[in-house]
This record gives sequence, C-alpha cells and structure tokens, in this order.
Amino acid sequence: MSFIKTPAVTLESINPKVRKCEYAVRGEIINHAHRLQRELETEPGSHPFDEIVYCNLGNPQALGQQPITFFREVLALCEHPALLDRDDNLALFSSDAIARACEILDLLPGRETGAYSHSQGAKGLREAIAAGIASRDGFPSNADDIFLTDGASPAVQTMIQLLIRTEKDGILCPIPQYPLYSASVTLHGGSLVPYYLNESTGWGLEILHLKNQLEGASSQGVAVRALVVINPGNPTGQVLSEENQKEIVEFCRKDGLVLLADEVYQENVYAGDKKFNSFKRIARSMGYERDELSLVSFHSVSKGYYGEGGKRGGYMELCGFSTDVKDQIYKVASVNLCSNILGQILSSLIMNPPKVGDESYESFAAEKERILSSLARRAKALEDAFNKLEGVTCNKVEGAMYLFPRLQLPNRAIKAAKIANAAPDAFYTHRLLDATGIVVVPGSGFGQVPGTWHIRCTILPEEDKIPALVSRLRAFHSSFMEEFRD
Amino acid sequence: MSFIKTPAVTLESINPKVRKCEYAVRGEIINHAHRLQRELETEPGSHPFDEIVYCNLGNPQALGQQPITFFREVLALCEHPALLDRDDNLALFSSDAIARACEILDLLPGRETGAYSHSQGAKGLREAIAAGIASRDGFPSNADDIFLTDGASPAVQTMIQLLIRTEKDGILCPIPQYPLYSASVTLHGGSLVPYYLNESTGWGLEILHLKNQLEGASSQGVAVRALVVINPGNPTGQVLSEENQKEIVEFCRKDGLVLLADEVYQENVYAGDKKFNSFKRIARSMGYERDELSLVSFHSVSKGYYGEGGKRGGYMELCGFSTDVKDQIYKVASVNLCSNILGQILSSLIMNPPKVGDESYESFAAEKERILSSLARRAKALEDAFNKLEGVTCNKVEGAMYLFPRLQLPNRAIKAAKIANAAPDAFYTHRLLDATGIVVVPGSGFGQVPGTWHIRCTILPEEDKIPALVSRLRAFHSSFMEEFRD
Repeated sequence: MSFIKTPAVTLESINPKVRKCEYAVRGEIINHAHRLQRELETEPGSHPFDEIVYCNLGNPQALGQQPITFFREVLALCEHPALLDRDDNLALFSSDAIARACEILDLLPGRETGAYSHSQGAKGLREAIAAGIASRDGFPSNADDIFLTDGASPAVQTMIQLLIRTEKDGILCPIPQYPLYSASVTLHGGSLVPYYLNESTGWGLEILHLKNQLEGASSQGVAVRALVVINPGNPTGQVLSEENQKEIVEFCRKDGLVLLADEVYQENVYAGDKKFNSFKRIARSMGYERDELSLVSFHSVSKGYYGEGGKRGGYMELCGFSTDVKDQIYKVASVNLCSNILGQILSSLIMNPPKVGDESYESFAAEKERILSSLARRAKALEDAFNKLEGVTCNKVEGAMYLFPRLQLPNRAIKAAKIANAAPDAFYTHRLLDATGIVVVPGSGFGQVPGTWHIRCTILPEEDKIPALVSRLRAFHSSFMEEFRD
Repeated sequence: MSFIKTPAVTLESINPKVRKCEYAVRGEIINHAHRLQRELETEPGSHPFDEIVYCNLGNPQALGQQPITFFREVLALCEHPALLDRDDNLALFSSDAIARACEILDLLPGRETGAYSHSQGAKGLREAIAAGIASRDGFPSNADDIFLTDGASPAVQTMIQLLIRTEKDGILCPIPQYPLYSASVTLHGGSLVPYYLNESTGWGLEILHLKNQLEGASSQGVAVRALVVINPGNPTGQVLSEENQKEIVEFCRKDGLVLLADEVYQENVYAGDKKFNSFKRIARSMGYERDELSLVSFHSVSKGYYGEGGKRGGYMELCGFSTDVKDQIYKVASVNLCSNILGQILSSLIMNPPKVGDESYESFAAEKERILSSLARRAKALEDAFNKLEGVTCNKVEGAMYLFPRLQLPNRAIKAAKIANAAPDAFYTHRLLDATGIVVVPGSGFGQVPGTWHIRCTILPEEDKIPALVSRLRAFHSSFMEEFRD
C-alpha cells in the first residue's frame, strides 16, 4: 500500500524568492561553527581551541552581558502579578519597579500579559513610547504613529512588503548593509538599488553618489521608493554627522522617497565627538512638518545597553503617512494579532528608564554606564588589534556593535580560495574558525566594493577574554599571511 | 522652501496584495466598537449599555480568564533569575516551578531570556516539545522538525510564503475559515481554492467535494499545493472523526498535497463523545512514515486552557520535508533571528505541564479543569440561547472557542442592508453592537455558502455574565425580527 512518491515539496518547487534570499549572519560559517561545537562537546581536545567564540551576531546576553535589573524586575512582576500582592515585595523588588509594573498592568487588556493587545500595541504603552521619543527629540510624537513589533526585523519587512509591488520597485540600500534589507527586498520581489559607503572617509555617505544611483536605477525603469539608512552603521560602525543627515532628509524629501531609518543602535555611540540624532529630530529642526517627509524610524530592545534580543521587542514610528496607508499597515499587523506583550512592555521601559530620584536610578545608571563604557573599551581594543595586523585596516568604531576591517589578502590566498570554491573573505573566516574557534562573518555577506574583502566581528566578547582573543587572532593572521605570502 | 508634494506613499501606490488582503476579526466592526467604547468613557450613559463585550476574538485573558499559576511562576523565575537565589523562594514559588526554571535556563544561550536563540528555537526547548508531542501521540517526534514561532499565525504565513510561487499556485481552504488563511494567500499572491464544510452534517468535511474542488482548480490551471484543515474547527467548532481524518490523510498523500493542520484548539474539546487526534498520530497509525506524507502541525500557547495569546508563542512540526527544504525555512526564520524566548519557554511548558506527584500538580489540574469545564458550560449555554432565537440555528460546539450560528434573515432586513451598503450579516452585527454593546463578527468575514448568513461569537465572556448577555441578545433579536418582519 505504501510506495515512494515525489515529495509534495522539493527545493525546486518552492517559492524562488525564498530560495534566492540570503542571510549571512546565520549562514554557512555558523553551521560550520555549530558542527565544531558539537565535536568539542563529544570529543574534547579534538580542535586546537576549547570553545567557540561567537563574534558573528549582535547577541550580547549570549556572551555574558547581564540584563538591566530594573527592566527585569518590572517584567517579572508583570508576568506574575501575584508577587505584587505580597507584603514583603519591597524586600524583593525596588519600589519604582513595583509602581511601574502596577501602572503597566493597568494599560493592558484584562490587566494581563497573556491577552492580545491592539494590533499596533497596547495604546498606553505606545503613549509611553511617544513620550520617550518626544523627550529624546524635543519634538512631539503621537501614539497613533507607533507600531509595536516583535523586534525591528519584522517591522522592516512590513515596510518593504508595503512598498514593493513588482521587481520594478527599488529600495536604495547601503553597501555594506545589514543583510535583513537585501533579504527582505528579495523575499518581496523588489530590486535592491545599492549605494556604496566610502570606506576611505570613515564609511561616509555621499549625496552625489546617492543621486547617481537613483538616476541609474530610473534609467533602467526601476522606481526607487525608499532609502535605507542605518545610523549608527551596521556593519560599518559610523555615526552620521548632523550635516550629512540634513542632506539625506533633503534628498528624500525632494525625490519623494520614504526614509527608512534603522536607528536600533541609537544608544551605542562610543566616539566622544559624535552624538546620535534621530532623523525625525533632524527633519523637524529643519522645519519640515509631518506632511513634508515620509519617515520611518525603527528601534528595538535588542541592542543599546539592554541587549534584550530574545525578548523580540521593538517599534516603528511612522511620520508623514496618511491615515489610509497606516490603516493598511494596521490590517497587515492584525493578521498576526499583536506583537508579544513582554516585548511591548520592555520597549516602553527602554524609552522611559528610571529617572533621577527613583529608587532604582543609581543602580540603573551604574549598570548602564558599566556596559556602555566596557563596550567602548572593547571596541577600541579590537580596532587597535585589527589595525596592527599585516594588511588589515579598520575604521574607528564610532557606534553600534561591530568592526568591519578590510583585509588585503595575498594573491596566493585569493587563488587558494578560488580552488576551495569560496570567496576570499569566506575562505579567511573558515580558516580563522578552524584555527581559533572565533566566528566572524565574511564581508561578502554584507556587500562590499568588488575586489575588496572584509570581515564583520562584534565587539561583544567579555572584556576579560579580549586579550586572549586578540592573541589568537594575531597568531592565526601571521601564520595565514606566512602560508600565502606572494 | 517647503511646499506640499505628493506624499511618497499613497493608498494607490502600495503593494496591491496588501490592499486586497482582508482580516475581518479585527475589521470594521471592531473599529466601530472602539469608537463606542471611547464614547462610553467620555460620556457615560450615551448608549443603551454600560460596556462593550468583545466576542469577536479568541482572547480569553482579555475577558477575565486567569493564567495558569505554574506557567507564570516558571516564566517570572526565568525572567528574573535573581529570585532563584533567594533563600525564601519556596515561600514564593512552588518547588517544581523552581526546578523547571533552573532546567530551562540551562537550555538558553547565556542562561538568559534576553539572548537570541537558534532561529528554530532553543534546541533544548524543542527537545522538550518533541517529547511532549511523542507522549501525546505515541509516535516519535524530532526536535529538528520543530520550528518555534511567535504564535501560530507567523508559522502559517511562513508555510504559505514557501509554497506559493505565482497566482497559479493554490491552497485548498475550508469555507468558513479563519481569515488568517485567506489573508496569507492573498498577501503572497496565490489562489485560495475553497472547499465548503457541510453545515447540515455538523460542518462535515466531504472528501468527494475536496476532490471536485481540486479538479476544478486544476482545470483552470491552478496547481493545488496544500490543504488547510482546522481541527477543532474555527469558526465552526466541529471536531473531526478519526475516520474522516484518515480520508483526509489519504487524499493529501495520493495527490501530493501538503497537509497544513491547524491544531491550535487541540485542548479545547467539549463534546464527551469526541476526542482530538493529531493528524500525525492518524498518519502514523495508518502506517505512513515520514517520507509518505508532508504534514505541518501548527500549535500555539494562545488557546487551550492557558489562553496566553499575548505571549506570542507557538510552534510548527514539519513531517515529511527534506533537509534542504527545512534549511530554506530555517533561513527565512533566521532573517527575524528567533521567536521570543518567553513564548518559546511557554510552548515547552504547555507540552510538558506538571505531572502527578509534582508539587503543583493538584492546583494545576484544578485550574485547568475549572477553565475547561466552564468553557464547556458557556458553549452549551450560548448554543442553546442561539438555537432558541427565531430563525437561528447553531451547530453543536464540539470544540474550539466559537459559535457560528446561521441567521435566516427576513427579506426586509436584507433589503435594508443593501440600502445601508452592507452585507446582511454585517448589518445585523452592527445593529447588535449599537443596541447591546456585544461585538461579534459577520460570517462574511469567514466565508459562507452564498445566500446564507452567519455570525461568529466566542464562548469567552465570563460565566456569570452569560445570562445577562443572553437576555440582551434575545431582546435585540426579537426587536430586530419585529422591525424587519416580512
């Protein structure tokens, strides 16, 4: 009775857009790292290292970063409100965490984290986020413009899905870019129109080049609908100057492009002479009101000093979108009912952390400072280390969580890569992993000027592990360069 | 300098698939309910009722259902592990919740709910879920086949996205159906191939009719790729018989269709003579091994006796998919990094609740029984109430959370609806809402045999509010029928 049939689904019979989509941050190199990790577990000593150091993904808590106590107190209380009823709860939780949890529960349907909220997110939490945005920018923000999402990634996908009709719709994306953008454009069948960040000017964004790329796309029949800007940059780590941001706003406004502003690293600025400015603040300070620029700002609980990626919390603020278009976004959001409530709560907390005078304030501020100053030191240490390697140059990490050093590889290494059927940077990252257990992502996963090679390495390994990591990296790199010296 | 331009995005310039998509459960009737609620708040007494009763959405905790204590204890401990280190924690939490939280933290990267997990979900949690499935079905389950997701809805969308290439790919969907399916098929540009459930046989699913619909689609050049079955049914509440499930398995196997089994109501069975059987158990008990049927089972933490929709937890188990196809699903999942960790944890808990002998077992079992028996009584009370209304017939609610009564409306009501530019059932639900504050969804949002009219009403209002709700419904219905009597 049973017989082998053609399976209902084969690689050849799935949606080709799915097949074509790429996402390098969790690509082949990571699968290889997982294999090595299993081998280390089943056969200790089978490799020249004791552990895999995952520098591929901005995942701070996986590498030992501690969560912010106040945030976790509030979340635990919201999750199990019975704790609020205990007489001894002040021995367990700070008074402001208790007060905040009570306020938040009042904003939730049924006073429960287990109920679906409004599909844009619970109204009261959106109001709290709007207040936080207004206080950050000095310009008003409206809860109706905010959509809470399961992290920034689904928010970006929602906007790309909204904007792309056919392959004749294009999205201007930076190169190098975080591959969420290329993956989303591919999945929704649009055209990625690249613009190159200028490595020699610290990954500068040049408006003239943007215009050229836009015109080039137009001449090929591609209508560019939006410009993606990642600030602070991923994987490139630059923080845009106010002047540059103004030019970008002007460019989008004049050409009727939606400005998709990935601002998830807004709290990760390490360069003393740089400051994060939201694009909304820039646009409003130029006198542009909501009808004059269509702008989406994406934010997330995953980065900053909180690093709560596993919570999948985030939001997008839409400025300059008509009600009927926002209704369409609401409709699409409602198909998934709502984003997770704990993530919604945490989004409201990061935009409204403890204030001077609150019981938690001092310990909160100390935890925050400890994390951010350590990240800055780690960024500097790794940047210096990369710059000391033969043939490697690394721009300053002004912000975000990544280094993106450029590798000048010997011709013999490039030939060896070709024989191994790999891009030269992928060849390098595999050799690095096999020799040291360090996982970084080849630059080809982010895009780069053809003929240049890079790697992306996070700044997230624990601070006391950095010196050993640098030694291993240095030893590997020397021997790699020796092996392939022309 | 500033001038009014065409906005970058207009309703006309967005993706037409987004525009075309519909999702009635949070559609126009709900917006109207929200307006009335605001009016009640700003002007009490402005309507002939004191509160809006939301019977539109399966959202138990929004209507007063209490969460299961054990689950919340574990989640709170995982969220704030500092509580585990306190000497007095046994005064605050049950010993098995403490033990379970410790076990779970060991399964998470960095022992933190704030770290991203593997994009399929943390391996250890998937193993726990696989063990729960195996124990439910009596057949093995493999963690590699399980994908944890932010609720069942994104899982369904992922599968629809995978299967649909062009509008020539079809998905067989029940009518009436939960509109997630029609919305997903529309968003991904495929064809919904309907099959009608037979109301006169208790929403029976007839294989001959399925075959006819499949052949009809084929003859129009539509390749049907999958069959959606919702069991227990939403909005229709039937629980499939084992015999019927066997026929469905045979049909999918022979025609090479993927069986997309929406099994989110598997714990919501009220009919004493009915029992939930997973399609996997049915297929395995027929002797079909994994290569012989491609089957996806969707489950969620949102329904059952737990009703934790706001947690956005769920999973899909893929059986009979090749590794290379699962790799593609993994890749798409990785673009969003992972589903939220609290939802992942809760998914592992619902599949492995306390067992006899655990400290929490007795109270857990009592809480569960209280909720499920109350749901059964509410279903019966509302079913009886609908059946007593003039011109209304309502099939037995064997499972799930909804009634889907049929309305025989007077011709004059149908004409009045036409004048109001509304479908007759939408006209009825608007009148019901305006008169009573009760929100139900018109059947047209789920699909129905042309010329028949239904409403979907959840069984979720609190039990002590049911009698008053029934009185208001009865009074409204009588006056409606009087007003429009032919």
